[in-house]
Amino acid sequence: MAKSSTEHIKKIRIGRAAAKLFSETGYLDTSMSEIASAARMSKGGVFHYFSAKDEVLCFILCNYMDLVLERLEEDLEKIGDSFSRLQFFISRHIELYEKNAAESRTLLHEAHNLPPKHFKILAEKEKKYFQVLANLLLDYLGGSIPKARLTAMAFTLFGMCNWIYQWYDPKGTLTPKELSEMIFGIFSAGVNSYEQSKRA
Amino acid sequence: MAKSSTEHIKKIRIGRAAAKLFSETGYLDTSMSEIASAARMSKGGVFHYFSAKDEVLCFILCNYMDLVLERLEEDLEKIGDSFSRLQFFISRHIELYEKNAAESRTLLHEAHNLPPKHFKILAEKEKKYFQVLANLLLDYLGGSIPKARLTAMAFTLFGMCNWIYQWYDPKGTLTPKELSEMIFGIFSAGVNSYEQSKRA
Repeated sequence: MAKSSTEHIKKIRIGRAAAKLFSETGYLDTSMSEIASAARMSKGGVFHYFSAKDEVLCFILCNYMDLVLERLEEDLEKIGDSFSRLQFFISRHIELYEKNAAESRTLLHEAHNLPPKHFKILAEKEKKYFQVLANLLLDYLGGSIPKARLTAMAFTLFGMCNWIYQWYDPKGTLTPKELSEMIFGIFSAGVNSYEQSKRA
Repeated sequence: MAKSSTEHIKKIRIGRAAAKLFSETGYLDTSMSEIASAARMSKGGVFHYFSAKDEVLCFILCNYMDLVLERLEEDLEKIGDSFSRLQFFISRHIELYEKNAAESRTLLHEAHNLPPKHFKILAEKEKKYFQVLANLLLDYLGGSIPKARLTAMAFTLFGMCNWIYQWYDPKGTLTPKELSEMIFGIFSAGVNSYEQSKRA
């Protein structure tokens, strides 16, 4: 195995352990020693890969956003109609969110702790994701929509999806598939009806 | 002015200053000295009213939830139809949220820092608020709805409303009234359409 690959695997291991701690205890309350211990490494070992705790945070959040963006546009292009594309976008968002619960919770709760230069990198990735959704909505609703309205619609959907970290238990009665279907059902019909009322 | 009333005014002053600091800098990163300085009081003065920082947090969050619950059921009862009651609930939620931005942000970001006994008091108030919305939805949609579905619907709406702290600028193009109208428009039509599809 090449050195760079081994290094990346080690970084992933540290990132996973740290994300779990950050999402449970909070970023500020977690020390590099605790991260090392959770990753079953020495503190020196962790410092070999990350020079500071904010570098670990940046690695976790940027990696998560890369996963969110990975093949997104290519996969959307393969789907024929905008109704199904919106459905795919929502179910994919919920699935990624649930499968990477520690990372997604850390993104929502701790991103503001990133130093400006790292925050900027993350914000660029988030902006790209937002833009994919905004284009999808334009396509779904047809015609032109004022920018402020389109932005609010997109963030209303993100709100429906992301708020689940406050209340949703994937092991409860409602399956992640049912949850996605509900959010898609409410949003797709609702946004269509709202947009028609604005144009009437 | 009675002593108890003066005391309450002082506590409100400390709470306001602290909520602003907590929402800007974070609860863990704010000291009692900083709270005292922001409230233009001595540190001893603050400790006269609150024995610890978590008491300040509890005071802020419980007060905010009391405001959210204040006259809510009475005001809803005065409104004839469930469509208008839902509209009132949403616009009231957005308005309170915007007018008490520091307190509502602190509620979303810092409530987990409350010690268990205080957290329990807050959770009771939040549960009551949730129940008002759940009853409202039952009324609006008619018939019986499985509990897990009703819960998910209610939290989907809270997600649309509460997520605004991540993106919405009340001084921007979209007014709070327009934002409320959009959320109400999307949710009321969407949840109706979704529920009909489940019953079909």
